[in-house]
Amino acid sequence: MPRTAIWKSILDTLRAEIGTGRYRVGDKLPTEAELSRRFGVNRHTVRRALAGMAESGLVHPRRGAGVFVAAPPTDYPLGRRVRFHQNLRAAGQTPDKTILLIETRLPDRAETTALHLRDGAQVHAYEGISLANGTPLALFRSVFPAARFPTLPQDLEETPSVTAALSRGGVADYTRASSRLTAKLATATQALHLRIREGAPILRTIGINVDETGQPVEYGHTWFAGDRISLTIAPE
Amino acid sequence: MPRTAIWKSILDTLRAEIGTGRYRVGDKLPTEAELSRRFGVNRHTVRRALAGMAESGLVHPRRGAGVFVAAPPTDYPLGRRVRFHQNLRAAGQTPDKTILLIETRLPDRAETTALHLRDGAQVHAYEGISLANGTPLALFRSVFPAARFPTLPQDLEETPSVTAALSRGGVADYTRASSRLTAKLATATQALHLRIREGAPILRTIGINVDETGQPVEYGHTWFAGDRISLTIAPE
Repeated sequence: MPRTAIWKSILDTLRAEIGTGRYRVGDKLPTEAELSRRFGVNRHTVRRALAGMAESGLVHPRRGAGVFVAAPPTDYPLGRRVRFHQNLRAAGQTPDKTILLIETRLPDRAETTALHLRDGAQVHAYEGISLANGTPLALFRSVFPAARFPTLPQDLEETPSVTAALSRGGVADYTRASSRLTAKLATATQALHLRIREGAPILRTIGINVDETGQPVEYGHTWFAGDRISLTIAPE
Repeated sequence: MPRTAIWKSILDTLRAEIGTGRYRVGDKLPTEAELSRRFGVNRHTVRRALAGMAESGLVHPRRGAGVFVAAPPTDYPLGRRVRFHQNLRAAGQTPDKTILLIETRLPDRAETTALHLRDGAQVHAYEGISLANGTPLALFRSVFPAARFPTLPQDLEETPSVTAALSRGGVADYTRASSRLTAKLATATQALHLRIREGAPILRTIGINVDETGQPVEYGHTWFAGDRISLTIAPE
């Protein structure tokens, strides 16, 4: 397998050079022609090495523009307690949120079912962008039972943390009852908010959080920029 | 909100018609112009309804070709025991696998770390396509410590179930120690194997399975066709 060995050693060399800072996050790597010359191999071999780096998330190819060093994805634990602010701080990053919408309205069918609402009961909807060190990580849309949390809209305006806002509403602790995940492509609007390309990969999660008695308190959708996140799951 | 009500009622009507079989999986819906005429609304309103249906996975828009009724995604539990055959049967589907490769080779760095291998220890690599009712659901690549499972390559040729093959190797039970998930775009090769478009959404999981003593027995990558799967996580 001499061929395999060559592209792997090119991959290892470039990875090491990214590790030591010769190429930094956002930098464009040399072209395939330049790398072929440098390593004394044909472009097919260089392409194989670059494809391997892209697959492991080290670099992003951008069609027609070149191959760029990617920011390492943020590890985001999806455990029994899913807490954006705590998760981000644990990953050594500064969490922030941009509010896009807070409104009180009638729920759709899925929201009614998830929150066990009666006919005519309203929800508070909370939509925004989650940021890590100033870079958009995810879009979110959460709904909460309005009757149970009358002051939640003001609380969410005052604190960026859902945990803190729910605590003001009397919820001392809440846990994730279920999560559902799939992969999607970014729509034009999502791409704009997340500062990614339209059609870039999105990891969508849908989760239900319940209080200590098992009552649902939050039904949330999150659209993570796939290149910026790695969800981790470990039994507790 | 009269405008909202109109597109939602169009969405509900079309969803009900898919539910009753007027439009079936793979069917092309009428064009925007035809739907505008039928419902007596402008195309903006029709587009809003179709976008809502695409977001919830009911339909796939294909650029330039129209909007098609999607197959409902398979629910795939990502719990303590991740078992392809059992998961698929529980979802009422017939599981199958196409083997692409079985080989014994030296591991890469990530494989060495995940399986706690010593220098020079080899792995059995097992690559293939997982199918549900004959439709490709995922590509997989798993590696196993070769020294511990000397007959695994033959066992995997003889049984499509990793659980059964590991059981022949003396592993009565194994559990998922950790999973890592992100979203990617399908490469040309992945698209070909999964019968999806290049650039379609892929949900990639990386998992480590351990035996009853905590020893890693399998390190696996899975690339799920995003449109065909919904991973579910519920605390046990």
